[in-house]
Amino acid sequence: MNKIRKKLHFNAFVMNTVSHIHHGQWRRPDAKQSEFNDVNLWIELAKLLEAAKFDAIFFADVTGLYGDADSEFDIYAKEGLQIPSNDPIVLLSALAAHTKDIGLALTSNILQSHPFHFARQLSTLDHISNGRVGWNIVTGVQDNGSRNFGLGQLTDHTERYEWAEEYVNVTYKLWEGSWDEGAVLKDRINGIYSDPSNIHKIHHRGNRYSVEGPHLSSPSPQRTPVLFQAGSSESGRKFAAKNAEAVFIAAPSPEVAATQIAETRRLARDLGRNPEDLKFFQGLSFIIGDTSEEAVAKSKEYDRYVSVDGYLAHTAIVDKNGRVYDRNTPIKDIETNTVRGALELVSKYITDREPTIADLVYLRTHNPHTCIVGTAEQIADKIEEWQEAGIDGINVVNWVIPGSFEEFADEILPVLRTRGLAQSEYVSGSFREKIFGSAFLNERHPAARYRGAFRGHDKLRG
Amino acid sequence: MNKIRKKLHFNAFVMNTVSHIHHGQWRRPDAKQSEFNDVNLWIELAKLLEAAKFDAIFFADVTGLYGDADSEFDIYAKEGLQIPSNDPIVLLSALAAHTKDIGLALTSNILQSHPFHFARQLSTLDHISNGRVGWNIVTGVQDNGSRNFGLGQLTDHTERYEWAEEYVNVTYKLWEGSWDEGAVLKDRINGIYSDPSNIHKIHHRGNRYSVEGPHLSSPSPQRTPVLFQAGSSESGRKFAAKNAEAVFIAAPSPEVAATQIAETRRLARDLGRNPEDLKFFQGLSFIIGDTSEEAVAKSKEYDRYVSVDGYLAHTAIVDKNGRVYDRNTPIKDIETNTVRGALELVSKYITDREPTIADLVYLRTHNPHTCIVGTAEQIADKIEEWQEAGIDGINVVNWVIPGSFEEFADEILPVLRTRGLAQSEYVSGSFREKIFGSAFLNERHPAARYRGAFRGHDKLRG
Repeated sequence: MNKIRKKLHFNAFVMNTVSHIHHGQWRRPDAKQSEFNDVNLWIELAKLLEAAKFDAIFFADVTGLYGDADSEFDIYAKEGLQIPSNDPIVLLSALAAHTKDIGLALTSNILQSHPFHFARQLSTLDHISNGRVGWNIVTGVQDNGSRNFGLGQLTDHTERYEWAEEYVNVTYKLWEGSWDEGAVLKDRINGIYSDPSNIHKIHHRGNRYSVEGPHLSSPSPQRTPVLFQAGSSESGRKFAAKNAEAVFIAAPSPEVAATQIAETRRLARDLGRNPEDLKFFQGLSFIIGDTSEEAVAKSKEYDRYVSVDGYLAHTAIVDKNGRVYDRNTPIKDIETNTVRGALELVSKYITDREPTIADLVYLRTHNPHTCIVGTAEQIADKIEEWQEAGIDGINVVNWVIPGSFEEFADEILPVLRTRGLAQSEYVSGSFREKIFGSAFLNERHPAARYRGAFRGHDKLRG
Repeated sequence: MNKIRKKLHFNAFVMNTVSHIHHGQWRRPDAKQSEFNDVNLWIELAKLLEAAKFDAIFFADVTGLYGDADSEFDIYAKEGLQIPSNDPIVLLSALAAHTKDIGLALTSNILQSHPFHFARQLSTLDHISNGRVGWNIVTGVQDNGSRNFGLGQLTDHTERYEWAEEYVNVTYKLWEGSWDEGAVLKDRINGIYSDPSNIHKIHHRGNRYSVEGPHLSSPSPQRTPVLFQAGSSESGRKFAAKNAEAVFIAAPSPEVAATQIAETRRLARDLGRNPEDLKFFQGLSFIIGDTSEEAVAKSKEYDRYVSVDGYLAHTAIVDKNGRVYDRNTPIKDIETNTVRGALELVSKYITDREPTIADLVYLRTHNPHTCIVGTAEQIADKIEEWQEAGIDGINVVNWVIPGSFEEFADEILPVLRTRGLAQSEYVSGSFREKIFGSAFLNERHPAARYRGAFRGHDKLRG
């Protein structure tokens, strides 16, 4: 216990919906996520998290039904499985106006919003929150999400990441290059609000977008929001290594996490960044008791609410008519890539018989590495194992809202604090300053090349 | 004074920017609009307006520079003339979380946001605000706005309104037709959050959009937000007559307003709506004094801050290099449609010589019908003239924020209340209930035809 420990970052990993990750739990009497339309649920949660010094509250999002086949989406509607769900940008602004320090992060898909409009919405939110915004850049969507935006079929991984590269470049140009530092003068005597010689059109012309500029918002405290990414495909990892400041991972064990982290850090170094420019957040859930026995008993009580169908539908383990498979179906009989990846994992735990899809769900709620059950001290020990594997932060995944976060705040964080693993006070400054110690993206980030890049470009003046 | 008077509606007509309508006033020592990036300015203003029982706060918006020619936008930057400016949807959510009754309205252009995404953002805001959202449907943009969204040249009026028709129809389908009443069950016992048989895909296929659905948000208190429109072209008036519940006008006199209102009401009747389905809001500014003399003196003091260049640039009265014309240029020598319309107006007031563009600006700040200067009683008399011409509400256009609204609240509204022209308390319910007495769009509105229209449409099930 004499190791010098670095503080971990803690992120509440939620979604503006009923059933985000742990399906069926909304039915518990103490679960308030069914009231997600009520902004007060989220304001109270954000205040609770801020009082507990969580680094951020993060809202996942979708652009359509998580899965569906043809016209069938019964299971998603019944489970409240990411439908109904509301927009996270709009919600976060309300939370910004009721908090002061906590980071406010959101998913936005390149599909859903034109980059000129999106960049301005995020600049607005960064102004309102005084520099607390993070953006999880998402490129993948379910087919229904694609069809909501007029695309018949999803483009392939590589093509999507090329699209994403152009998308982020448009936003980087607007955030970093369009307004120089010092452009805003507010000079009442001479009647000059902004100095036009320090504001630039970006004249972007690419495969998908043509954007003239200038950016309509003046520079917000962070300019570019803190950039998150969660891609796990090869193109996705490359994109993260190039663009992300923080990477979400969902490794089944610390060992797997260590491998993933090393690989992405290596890719980042190859791209001219420092491996430490990236921070890794692992998703974990917790069930805490005063004794091990109490925690296990509580875990069994949560089991009563587990919706096997919900987990299967979330993994899109449905047949071509959108029906959930019988839970005794052997995993090997199911023809999806998602499931084939899962088989490898389940086979580590189920060795005495052919694993079924019910085993897969069991593992999603009982993998001892990711669904940690125990006393606060036991949980802290497990968290240390993750830290030793190289993670920088934890996405705390709830069973119930707000209960799971209340317990984490009241029982787990105090123990982590005594071990030097959790902050007691916020660092001052923007979200990026709190996490990375600097106000702006560093010079190694690809967005940095647009700083000053458009000076003179629009000075064809008389 | 024995007439029975109807209460007027009052709308604070602002924009998330420095200089919205009355250019140059941001330089006044008491003007806080230069701090528009600070959400607290707007939270305090919204609270002030709510305490004064204003019906709504409305945020105008742009998609690009109000005017520019080639690379020249010096005048806009210097004047803070709608640049920098921030997104109104994001701001309104913060205001929603700090108010209870006031309506929250915004401009959104069909150009800037895909209708599937936009519909969800507004549903989210309508949930957060408990049914207080209004949308001003805008189709026209400046050329720079068009080029920010990848369109080289603006489509013509007629084409834009066809586009707008498709756009609003997609949103109507999502808001009115995708989720039936009663679809959300929150049935914890049987594990059914929503009843899938009451949720429908919309399968929209049109010239510009292909949107499958279902809408991701469950029905918000108003479903469709209160619909505003401000179009003045022939296609614009038709569009308003068909779709709007409230119409913004900027008539130079009550007589002109009466004609415009009668014409739009007649168009609405021809389209199967009741003429009274539409309410008309006239934009007016006020300078108040304890005596007429004091008001006139105050008006002269505001004159000191008027930026003639700002008004000219706002009207896009700039030459083809983006330079503001000399203020003594005769209006007749300038080749823009905007100015030709203005000439007719100015000629009513300037009859002894050739009107110049400086006269035009003078009229914009001194037209006694629209920039009303006087005591509270004199101002109330003028407001009665507008009401007799048929207006239902007033867009209060500020000189300074928050001073112009403070004065209106503290000095003008009390007089209007004694005359029965302003409410003392809010009506309960949503924005639409407060203004129109009904929760949802009435049966005569074109959106009503989508209610129940998709039932069975997606029931090709086994």
